[in-house]
Amino acid sequence: MQEERLSEFELDARLARDTELVASLGLCQLRMMKDSRWPWFMLVPQRNGVSEVFELTPLDQAILTFETNTVAAALKKATGAEKTNVAAIGNIVRQLHVHIVARSEGDPNWPGPIWGFGQAESYDDAARQILIDRLTENLAS
Amino acid sequence: MQEERLSEFELDARLARDTELVASLGLCQLRMMKDSRWPWFMLVPQRNGVSEVFELTPLDQAILTFETNTVAAALKKATGAEKTNVAAIGNIVRQLHVHIVARSEGDPNWPGPIWGFGQAESYDDAARQILIDRLTENLAS
Repeated sequence: MQEERLSEFELDARLARDTELVASLGLCQLRMMKDSRWPWFMLVPQRNGVSEVFELTPLDQAILTFETNTVAAALKKATGAEKTNVAAIGNIVRQLHVHIVARSEGDPNWPGPIWGFGQAESYDDAARQILIDRLTENLAS
Repeated sequence: MQEERLSEFELDARLARDTELVASLGLCQLRMMKDSRWPWFMLVPQRNGVSEVFELTPLDQAILTFETNTVAAALKKATGAEKTNVAAIGNIVRQLHVHIVARSEGDPNWPGPIWGFGQAESYDDAARQILIDRLTENLAS
């Protein structure tokens, strides 16, 4: 039943375009933004028709919290960032997604927010792979 | 032991200046931003020396999730907003605090973020009290 629901999950078209899949966790897809300005990841619960965290079941809310905090801790460790920014905004893309971003002094728009700031800059392949590898190593440990 | 820790909680000076206390929940202070541009609240876990959600104990993380989602659902109902924005950023104020904001089409900077946008505008007393009453009614129900 659960597997059936997961297999039917439909990712929002804009999320599909702007991010790439890194790993599939218990509840969420862990995806990376195609924007090299900040180490910027996203958790997308594999549930259709949900736009607010409080619309998830209580169990899913607990799992999302666990996955969010696990990824945020790993990302901070992987990057040596000063602060993580964690946010569920969704004013534009309504499919529930949680941003997890590593911020450091002097990065673009620091200490302001990353959302709505400037234009995405693409990764070069090596830098992209190094970041993914570092994050997944820290997720596994 | 727990009570002792709570009584010693020290609120960051900038949070104390920019927000006012609405209610004390199990873990968090529920506070309202002194900014009438958006219905903008904040949960501040009464724990000293914590700046990331993942630094809380697992139990505190679960309680924070519960309190955050309870307040967000009540705020959406109280305001009829289109979307809530929930975020732990903390690039400037390092004491852990979670923003919970009701957003509606056409509000200032919609659909962009509220953080780092323009200047705070003060409430008139009546509007402020109506919002607090509506939120607390919906929290209680």
